[in-house]
Amino acid sequence: ILDTKYTKNFISDEEIKNIGLEVEKAHSLLIDKNSQGKGSVGWIDIPRESDDRLMGEIESIAKSVITNSDAIVIIGIGGSYLGARAAIETLVPGLVGKKIFFAGYNICGDHIKGLLDALKNKEIVVNVISKSGTTTEPALAFRIMENFMKKKYSPKKLKDRIICTTDRSKGAMRRIADANGYRSFVIPDDVGGRFSVLTAVGLFPMACAGIDIREVIRGAKEQFFDSAECNVENNACYRYAAIRNLLYRKGKKIEIFASFDNRMHYIDEWWKQLFGESEGKNGRGIFPASCDFSTDLHSMGQLIQEGERNIFETFLIVDKEDENCLIPYDNEDMDELNYLAGKQVDYVNLKAYEAVSLAHFEGGVPNMTMHLAERTPFCLGQLFYFFEKAAAISGYVSGVNPFDQPGVEAYKQKMFKLLGKYGS
Amino acid sequence: ILDTKYTKNFISDEEIKNIGLEVEKAHSLLIDKNSQGKGSVGWIDIPRESDDRLMGEIESIAKSVITNSDAIVIIGIGGSYLGARAAIETLVPGLVGKKIFFAGYNICGDHIKGLLDALKNKEIVVNVISKSGTTTEPALAFRIMENFMKKKYSPKKLKDRIICTTDRSKGAMRRIADANGYRSFVIPDDVGGRFSVLTAVGLFPMACAGIDIREVIRGAKEQFFDSAECNVENNACYRYAAIRNLLYRKGKKIEIFASFDNRMHYIDEWWKQLFGESEGKNGRGIFPASCDFSTDLHSMGQLIQEGERNIFETFLIVDKEDENCLIPYDNEDMDELNYLAGKQVDYVNLKAYEAVSLAHFEGGVPNMTMHLAERTPFCLGQLFYFFEKAAAISGYVSGVNPFDQPGVEAYKQKMFKLLGKYGS
Repeated sequence: ILDTKYTKNFISDEEIKNIGLEVEKAHSLLIDKNSQGKGSVGWIDIPRESDDRLMGEIESIAKSVITNSDAIVIIGIGGSYLGARAAIETLVPGLVGKKIFFAGYNICGDHIKGLLDALKNKEIVVNVISKSGTTTEPALAFRIMENFMKKKYSPKKLKDRIICTTDRSKGAMRRIADANGYRSFVIPDDVGGRFSVLTAVGLFPMACAGIDIREVIRGAKEQFFDSAECNVENNACYRYAAIRNLLYRKGKKIEIFASFDNRMHYIDEWWKQLFGESEGKNGRGIFPASCDFSTDLHSMGQLIQEGERNIFETFLIVDKEDENCLIPYDNEDMDELNYLAGKQVDYVNLKAYEAVSLAHFEGGVPNMTMHLAERTPFCLGQLFYFFEKAAAISGYVSGVNPFDQPGVEAYKQKMFKLLGKYGS
Repeated sequence: ILDTKYTKNFISDEEIKNIGLEVEKAHSLLIDKNSQGKGSVGWIDIPRESDDRLMGEIESIAKSVITNSDAIVIIGIGGSYLGARAAIETLVPGLVGKKIFFAGYNICGDHIKGLLDALKNKEIVVNVISKSGTTTEPALAFRIMENFMKKKYSPKKLKDRIICTTDRSKGAMRRIADANGYRSFVIPDDVGGRFSVLTAVGLFPMACAGIDIREVIRGAKEQFFDSAECNVENNACYRYAAIRNLLYRKGKKIEIFASFDNRMHYIDEWWKQLFGESEGKNGRGIFPASCDFSTDLHSMGQLIQEGERNIFETFLIVDKEDENCLIPYDNEDMDELNYLAGKQVDYVNLKAYEAVSLAHFEGGVPNMTMHLAERTPFCLGQLFYFFEKAAAISGYVSGVNPFDQPGVEAYKQKMFKLLGKYGS
């Protein structure tokens, strides 16, 4: 559920109604198979047309992986890993760094070396996720990891321990998989990286973390129907797209996406790519920033409350709190916290959220809240689909093609030249 | 060293010269003991007047703490912990979560519960850092941690295991320390939280992590002299303050601070508080955002390259690379990376930085680079002092008092009311 009450003073009902026409156009562009985005909208129907054979294959391979390994290394960057990481950190906190390791998302020797040290005496399985196989970060990490594993395992055993998620037929990673007999999952041609969390890209790592991926898809499917109707009033996903465009036009150039739970930090990161890459082009685009509250209230809070009024916020709140940490009573009460004794820590956190959303609203920062009912695979499936569709609609409303990313090559070409890559 | 060549097309030499007059005024305000910031500038002279007795005390207590514990828990939030965390994660990567634990920087039951579980069979020492002792996050964490330790240790033993960093004479934490006989360090009255990293607030946790704090202070002292002269040409610290104000006035409302090394992530966070809280008031202030490159080039890169031209960047680069992870040669070369074989991973990272700074500049994003010679305590001391002084000067140039934070109470008052705190 999206709560938009704290945008009320900033946007009139009439403005929402008027932008409804633009949202309708965006909706048409999205479903029109002849628009500029055609060939990139395969993600729309994934939840409805859930592929039972694929789900079974993911579950069965994940099961064998979990059994045969002490450590599962997921190699990917950007859209190839942020969705999976968001789901795993949120739903199975504490697993990353113990059984699940992420690699290939930076070019940091210390990180790779530290990982190899940690894996020395472990049984390893690697899932490398790369459409092309030549993106520098994951390609480097995979080369080093494969080299490491070749010393540990015979070629025959390696076949059970490396799983590639890549293009159906093209690219270096496809050739590597085929030449070595590694098992593979397919990244559909019509699904871009930042929209791929509900494909094998996101689902296989989730399954390896023990997450019920059918529940994720079931949640996405519910959201599919909840956000199907082209109506800004009833369709919260479209309303979110509409409101953020209205706020942007009124000079709110920065959107802070903030959860109140450190475990959900990577949802912020996933969201940042989804919206930043979809909208940031042609000299325009809302700047997506993230905060972890309440932590960041003690760094960014002052500026949000009283700085330049070019900010709006979207909060991510889980309505059903954990009940895992009671505040004890203290005879002395020198810290004056006895008024909270017997309450859950997360209860205080929820009140902090309520206070922040009101205080920021009163300070001139419009804000919305995305309420998740529970911290479950089902609700996360809803969330993923909600924001994917919102990003597509929002991008079209803002006048760009939400499915391309022409600017990401600029630095790479310069880097290849500096590195002396042949032909660059 | 601050490299500003990629701001050249955006700012003229004349503009720099003109703002020099404003910088001079800012400089006068900073050193004028009668300005509005008087009473908050105790941090300025810390490196020069390094307190040998205090340093010895910090080192000796830290030494005993390291010997007597399996786990050191640092409780603090915002300015009470970000500097220490930045130094520890940067200089002793891998220690956090093993020997050093941070707490009290959120209101997340799962985090505290997880910490207590991890500490069950460990010998613990706690350093709680709080000027007042009643800030909700650290106060809650400390109450829960003290309660946990009281079951584990006798009151006599507890005296060796809890160290408070707090006000000299006032506040709940001072009373708790005195009543229980806990050892304590003093947070000077004339040093605000975000400027406190070179006091016991930052130095004691660093010493507990084995960092040579005299080297940190020695670096800060060198920077003290390097940034003493009021001259925009020769004083890089003042030039940074001048340029970011000029860029802000030209519509560059967002500053991205980006390192290319995940270990330095918390330097970004420390920097965000320092500048956001110092400047974000009176309806103005540069929005400080952080990125971890190259990771975030795969999420934010598109928008930075081609989105709204309201961004500038400051990169943090360590010139002396680690040599810890060689790229192996591969007979097949299906990933086409053999042109990098025999090179260090961090060499590629450095080339990525060079490519990014040029590509963003050409794309309309002015950027500067802060070069650290090495990843050492000395250089980190330089960095801390550089940005502290730059934040003070920059704030005065932008027309605000860089030392207050009137907006941070707004949500707290509402929260106390929602929680039913007596008198709120």
